[in-house]
Amino acid sequence: MGSGLVRERVILGIDPGLAHTGWGVVEQRGSRLSCVAYGCVTTTADVPLADRLLKIHHQLGAVIERFRPSCVGIETVWFGQNVTAAFATGQARGAALVACAEMGLTVGEYAPNQIKMAVVGEGTADKAQVQYMVRQLLGLPGTPEPDHAADALAAAICYTTHETKGCA
Amino acid sequence: MGSGLVRERVILGIDPGLAHTGWGVVEQRGSRLSCVAYGCVTTTADVPLADRLLKIHHQLGAVIERFRPSCVGIETVWFGQNVTAAFATGQARGAALVACAEMGLTVGEYAPNQIKMAVVGEGTADKAQVQYMVRQLLGLPGTPEPDHAADALAAAICYTTHETKGCA
Repeated sequence: MGSGLVRERVILGIDPGLAHTGWGVVEQRGSRLSCVAYGCVTTTADVPLADRLLKIHHQLGAVIERFRPSCVGIETVWFGQNVTAAFATGQARGAALVACAEMGLTVGEYAPNQIKMAVVGEGTADKAQVQYMVRQLLGLPGTPEPDHAADALAAAICYTTHETKGCA
Repeated sequence: MGSGLVRERVILGIDPGLAHTGWGVVEQRGSRLSCVAYGCVTTTADVPLADRLLKIHHQLGAVIERFRPSCVGIETVWFGQNVTAAFATGQARGAALVACAEMGLTVGEYAPNQIKMAVVGEGTADKAQVQYMVRQLLGLPGTPEPDHAADALAAAICYTTHETKGCA
């Protein structure tokens, strides 16, 4: 801080899901965060499973190619899920993480309450509070839509609070 | 059959798991099955998750490159698993299926009882029976080891009984 150097990095956040995989790219300069881009990869059940996973893998690969993040924040399993849902989310997460590993990104995995704590300051915050604070912290004109994109941005923000090495 | 034509195809079977992903390659000529190769991709918990998934993805990609299967049989989730196990298996399965989709393989997904039925003729067969019949059906000198490889070969055999189009 005192050196006048502004360290910066680009962080990807991912909210994995088979039907909707949210993604968000956050730039950090010192303690200042800004939103670079966000979006959502949507796949439908009428497409074969392997092709849905390939779409998630390819589109996240394209996001990484374009915005060149050095690291990624991603949520761990939510234990409130049932086995079928956890399996589906796991497959999407596997496809997403392969794309990240192929590009050499450093991966930070966070439990839902860690992400809420990082964004709202409270591990039991509700979805609306998380979305409000994502908007505030990134100086966005509105709440990012869909909510999967907001959750992905929250995971990226969480990364900045947990992995402080190399950033003032 | 009566035409004297021998239709043939190469089928990959996968038994996905984060620590052990079994694979097996089966060749079908008409009604005759033979084992081309089998093995297991092993990853350890001291390696970052994304790198474990990347290893599964890459090694299965190499198997597909080498043996050129046109299709793959893979087990669906086993509902006896808990959420954590289903999530881990799901991630490995996602990494595996991306490799299959990248190479354009046709995917057949089968429940555990379908695989047992295809191999043993009974949906409630135990592991030893499945392994014994995999050995018999493929004319192998011994039971394929590890058991993940035998399970993968069973998934490939299941594919041959469910997807008969293009094979006499």
